[in-house]
Amino acid sequence: MLRKIVAGVDIGGTNTKYGLVDEYGKILTRGTVHTPQYTDAAEFANVVSNIIIKEAEKIPDADLHGFGIGAPNGNYFTGTIELAPNLPWKSVIPLAKYFIDASGLPVVLTNDAKAAAMGEMLFGGAKQLKHFFFITLGTGLGSGIVSDGKIVYGHDGFAGEMGHMIVKEESNRLCGCGRHGCLETYCSATGIRKSYMKFLAEKDKRASIDPERIDSAFIYKQAMKGDEEALKAFEYTGHILGLALANAVTLFSPEVIFLFGGLAQSGDLIFNPTKKSFEENLLKIYKGKTKILPSSLNEGDAAILGSASLIWHDLKKINQ
Amino acid sequence: MLRKIVAGVDIGGTNTKYGLVDEYGKILTRGTVHTPQYTDAAEFANVVSNIIIKEAEKIPDADLHGFGIGAPNGNYFTGTIELAPNLPWKSVIPLAKYFIDASGLPVVLTNDAKAAAMGEMLFGGAKQLKHFFFITLGTGLGSGIVSDGKIVYGHDGFAGEMGHMIVKEESNRLCGCGRHGCLETYCSATGIRKSYMKFLAEKDKRASIDPERIDSAFIYKQAMKGDEEALKAFEYTGHILGLALANAVTLFSPEVIFLFGGLAQSGDLIFNPTKKSFEENLLKIYKGKTKILPSSLNEGDAAILGSASLIWHDLKKINQ
Repeated sequence: MLRKIVAGVDIGGTNTKYGLVDEYGKILTRGTVHTPQYTDAAEFANVVSNIIIKEAEKIPDADLHGFGIGAPNGNYFTGTIELAPNLPWKSVIPLAKYFIDASGLPVVLTNDAKAAAMGEMLFGGAKQLKHFFFITLGTGLGSGIVSDGKIVYGHDGFAGEMGHMIVKEESNRLCGCGRHGCLETYCSATGIRKSYMKFLAEKDKRASIDPERIDSAFIYKQAMKGDEEALKAFEYTGHILGLALANAVTLFSPEVIFLFGGLAQSGDLIFNPTKKSFEENLLKIYKGKTKILPSSLNEGDAAILGSASLIWHDLKKINQ
Repeated sequence: MLRKIVAGVDIGGTNTKYGLVDEYGKILTRGTVHTPQYTDAAEFANVVSNIIIKEAEKIPDADLHGFGIGAPNGNYFTGTIELAPNLPWKSVIPLAKYFIDASGLPVVLTNDAKAAAMGEMLFGGAKQLKHFFFITLGTGLGSGIVSDGKIVYGHDGFAGEMGHMIVKEESNRLCGCGRHGCLETYCSATGIRKSYMKFLAEKDKRASIDPERIDSAFIYKQAMKGDEEALKAFEYTGHILGLALANAVTLFSPEVIFLFGGLAQSGDLIFNPTKKSFEENLLKIYKGKTKILPSSLNEGDAAILGSASLIWHDLKKINQ
């Protein structure tokens, strides 16, 4: 009997990563395409689809059943990518349709954080959970919210943008979205950098470090060496994240909040202040009920696995 | 053929209101019981259940099919009321069970705002909607959140406490929950009173008005007369509410937000600043998509109708 496999495709501004994934979440093969090379989205879909189909043919006894695609501003309902600032295709692009036309197979598309949340649910630490948050702390802050076993899409497919909750109204931190004070201007790689720079400036230490060198990995190293401002930057980031998560819990009451991404890999440095602020700011009826845990997805696999799990999930629904 | 009816019971600290409701949302009869009279919750359930059963027997050809109960801190999953500060029964009370024991009929229980949201969905302005918020602006701020056609309960039944999102971290406004700066300390009858008193004090006008007289109805009358501080209190309340709703939209992306309760009846005075702040603070992808509307439920009927709709909804599910 043929072995069912699907393709997981993760579209980023620089690279599009793809992988062929079996129903146990095993990545059988993987590859990368340089995204900006394709100014035409239909051509992009054609090329990527053909590469993947050829890769699938090389796997003995494997039968490709569909594509799951994670992309910034990807919309599950419409299968389109809408106004994604970092992709070469402007306006509204019917990317799922392009992939269907190119491959003749079922295609499901959503944004990257929602895809990763689905990955956690199918193949990670959320297998038994019906209510959880998946938070990616990368350049920005992405979120996939699962309520009653389903990704929360809202009426238009764009729910779950926790990174764009305004957490400080008087903030001077400009967000990529054009507004000020969004959660991701504080709790992300970009956000902790801003906080660290601010704390350095307050102590007249800005000139002592080349700003080009400062990224979240650098701040992590400094904090591990005992650098006071780096430690303060982690404390501050965790404090704001903990409060925002406590507020989001009043709306959803999830069992677990998974943290993922570069900043989440800083371990206790980010988890301790986040958990402390979270428990302090929780409404009494929720206290002690919601865990904050690191995602169990491997940093390198999550994007492909998440996208693949999207189509696995929908294929299983169809066959029920 | 017998006509199916259900009972809607709304339990408050002072009064418990009940009504018999047909499947079209018509209230056929209604009455009130003084809640604090019953220090024993099982006795309370017995008395109220018997009164309702007798009332139902008076209606020709009617057949009572169940009870829907709305109560502060009511939990849909467990059928219990947990630590409700304004009710005579402390600790965790299995109220649904007491009503089942007393009546032998199906009983569904949830909190009052969630019950009202269900009322809006079955009998009000949300009949065609699958994604909406129902916000009650009363003494506090209650919320019922409907996502994908279902009330959001979370893993423990306590999701949807929007009034307890902390919106001002440095706030000195003490909330009933013991924390500071919750949304309901600003956006409720209690909240607008605090704001009005503050604005009066800033202009040394506090002494000119007996504080006992100041409630939201008084502030409304003052605003209609052009009282500057009263107008400012509405502006301020709407500003904070609009921002909080814009933040909640990033998580759920609802089609409509219904406002209900005394403060919502102030019309443009509260709707205009709320809508203005809401649209200003919305992330671009949501702009112009979510309406803020007054609830279509009648102030006097909503509690009974909401509770009744709870059990109608579950009875229909069972019969599907």
